[in-house]
Amino acid sequence: MAEPYRLTATDALTLIRENKLTVESYARSLLSRIEARDATVKAWAYLDPDLVLEQARNLDALPVEKRGPLHGLPIGVKDVMYTKDMPTEHNSPLYKDSLVSVDAAPVATLRAAGALIFGKTTTTEFASTTGGPATCNPHDPTRTPGGSSSGSGAAVGDYQVPIALGTQTGGSTIRPGSFNGVYAVKPTWGAVSREGLKVYSLNLDTVGVFGRSVEDLELVLPVLGVSDDEVTAESAFTGVKGAKFGLVKTSVWNNAGQGTIAAMEKAAKLLKGHGAIVEEIQLPAEFDNMPDWHAAILAGDGRTSFLSEYRRDKSKLSEWLVGQVENTEGYTRAQHLTALDGVASLRPRIDEIAGRYAALLTPSVPDEAPVGLQRTGSAVFCSMWTALHTPVVNVPGFQGENGLPIGLTLVARRYRDEHLLAVAREVGKIFNEEGGWKSSL
Amino acid sequence: MAEPYRLTATDALTLIRENKLTVESYARSLLSRIEARDATVKAWAYLDPDLVLEQARNLDALPVEKRGPLHGLPIGVKDVMYTKDMPTEHNSPLYKDSLVSVDAAPVATLRAAGALIFGKTTTTEFASTTGGPATCNPHDPTRTPGGSSSGSGAAVGDYQVPIALGTQTGGSTIRPGSFNGVYAVKPTWGAVSREGLKVYSLNLDTVGVFGRSVEDLELVLPVLGVSDDEVTAESAFTGVKGAKFGLVKTSVWNNAGQGTIAAMEKAAKLLKGHGAIVEEIQLPAEFDNMPDWHAAILAGDGRTSFLSEYRRDKSKLSEWLVGQVENTEGYTRAQHLTALDGVASLRPRIDEIAGRYAALLTPSVPDEAPVGLQRTGSAVFCSMWTALHTPVVNVPGFQGENGLPIGLTLVARRYRDEHLLAVAREVGKIFNEEGGWKSSL
Repeated sequence: MAEPYRLTATDALTLIRENKLTVESYARSLLSRIEARDATVKAWAYLDPDLVLEQARNLDALPVEKRGPLHGLPIGVKDVMYTKDMPTEHNSPLYKDSLVSVDAAPVATLRAAGALIFGKTTTTEFASTTGGPATCNPHDPTRTPGGSSSGSGAAVGDYQVPIALGTQTGGSTIRPGSFNGVYAVKPTWGAVSREGLKVYSLNLDTVGVFGRSVEDLELVLPVLGVSDDEVTAESAFTGVKGAKFGLVKTSVWNNAGQGTIAAMEKAAKLLKGHGAIVEEIQLPAEFDNMPDWHAAILAGDGRTSFLSEYRRDKSKLSEWLVGQVENTEGYTRAQHLTALDGVASLRPRIDEIAGRYAALLTPSVPDEAPVGLQRTGSAVFCSMWTALHTPVVNVPGFQGENGLPIGLTLVARRYRDEHLLAVAREVGKIFNEEGGWKSSL
Repeated sequence: MAEPYRLTATDALTLIRENKLTVESYARSLLSRIEARDATVKAWAYLDPDLVLEQARNLDALPVEKRGPLHGLPIGVKDVMYTKDMPTEHNSPLYKDSLVSVDAAPVATLRAAGALIFGKTTTTEFASTTGGPATCNPHDPTRTPGGSSSGSGAAVGDYQVPIALGTQTGGSTIRPGSFNGVYAVKPTWGAVSREGLKVYSLNLDTVGVFGRSVEDLELVLPVLGVSDDEVTAESAFTGVKGAKFGLVKTSVWNNAGQGTIAAMEKAAKLLKGHGAIVEEIQLPAEFDNMPDWHAAILAGDGRTSFLSEYRRDKSKLSEWLVGQVENTEGYTRAQHLTALDGVASLRPRIDEIAGRYAALLTPSVPDEAPVGLQRTGSAVFCSMWTALHTPVVNVPGFQGENGLPIGLTLVARRYRDEHLLAVAREVGKIFNEEGGWKSSL
């Protein structure tokens, strides 16, 4: 058997179920991986090995009939979600050592299913800025792992934990997914409870999940409550062959670098080579407003969300957040509403468009992870889908000119999350085998 | 000077500023009122007189230059909002004695402004059911105070505290406002942060505020971050005389009892008598979908929101909430989306309609508070405005056939909260003086 830390969640849970692996030995393997790598990657905001092992032993001691569907699954939790047994600091001095003795809803749900809540992963300040934490990209420590779910993306990419939770308000799940070469899913907005998480934008914030295989995401998402309406046998996805994909460059395509341009071309070619129909789609002109509308929603919502921290002690907030509360960009309430109503009017339209295809294919990021830890990169290709509330999955498999991973995003209409994962599973096999990038970790 | 507990917030804060009243003596007066009345009204889920007095003394000891705009203002907090120094139980056995050591955002904001967080007011289970807590209507203890913000409405109506926070997902602020004969405002959705509150519906939940005068609400709402875009002098509200009001009976008018029918007629007559123009408006037919759409949004959102409690221990949830998670009503995701998109499409339309008037006038409740504590009453007249995200204010002043208070609702377009309060202030004077109901407490 390979080192347990290398296992996917699916494989590890199978071994645990078959009594071939204890939760404790699995946890010890992950802890040893972390010990070996933490000085470089720095993915964790809080990790207490004793607490991990204590939980692991409790899980091992649990009678079989009391074990949940995720029994023994180690999960990293972005440090903007409450965990009853660990501090939640939001990468903010205002919350240094703050221990909130309830679990955020998704954490409670996963814990109730038998997950081992492993530790807290690093984030940018309140998951709201692009200024990075100290976390490095495991594939090249001179580069950012992306953000704001920096630690979750890096930890999963570095085999430190099989699954981690993140959030996405702009591109905070998909971007670190791409930069770290892992699968990352942002489900339909509203499908997973955000209770107990820091709020940046009520209209945009969404819980995300990172994993190294689609099967692993398919293990976790139904537990979190994600489920589609039933579909007829005829409309179910049965494979890439004969399936139709819509290639969407969007109005921000001029941000795509060589790595992403090449990945999009190669992806289309690979899908066609496997018998899919790939059509390039020009979205209606109204969709060109999406970047401005996303920015206006963020500004209007941020003005509300950080008021309490601002009033408590604005000297402990970054300049960016002070600016949000003070509305230095000068957005009016009317502009905020125009953006909210505009995006709302496009949601049924993108559903209709996406519904014609197995999935839409669109960039995740401009290119591979940039050098430097100061900035976590651009959300330009993600923010539109976040605001449209559609489910998106980052599928890795391509690479940039420096050999760093590049993923692409698959999009489905709202509440077609299970369908989208089924598509991502098949597409992912192709991208992984023929896209050109493999993790060397 | 009258007993301090009888003061409005505005008057009490003026006396405190002028050194004619200490925060401690004000708090003691309120505590004595509560002691005299609590056995009957039962408005409090948690109240620790020692903690109240300790906070009061700390506030009195604060140098003048460090005092905030709400210095010494006692505020009751609905027990679905985190308070760092008191348990938050949500009226659920799952959270018995649960102490979460952070303040919900609105609580933190008020505390930072010098408010005295007084205690936790009763709620229905998770502010989500219509099964009442033990709280009685202070005007007639055989009757419900309404819900889900039962304790907040009753405590303010009974002079136990000048200001209290509530929430509204259907009619949980406006209804207890009407039943207890107090002003109650539900600001524009998204204008006040909901971080640290129990989530029922991401799309509907809104923080509400109770007070016994509009001036008191005008004191608190700007502190919470509520503010309108600047308006030109010509479009500012200058008084009832010459102002235009839209009378909206809505598609659920058949739920109005004699008390509300009479109040609507009298209100129109009074406004006209004071020189206003009152036009009855028939909303476009699409608005007839609002009750069904509200129900579908609630069902879809509730399915997500209570999953974690359900998975932890469904035996401790009410049957209603178990049904929400299990989707016993059988709503599809598609129906949920149709409702979300449908309501979203009507928001700019109601803004346009409401924008033609100083305010819309519509019922708050079917009639005066019904007898019995088992049910907190109907949200039928409120849920539409909650889903439309418009600000609403309950204005008391009328009464039913048993002499219990009946209020009416004023509505403005989104983010016209300050304007709406200015209108409610003038309209409230008229209703209070000539509507026929006065509190005998």
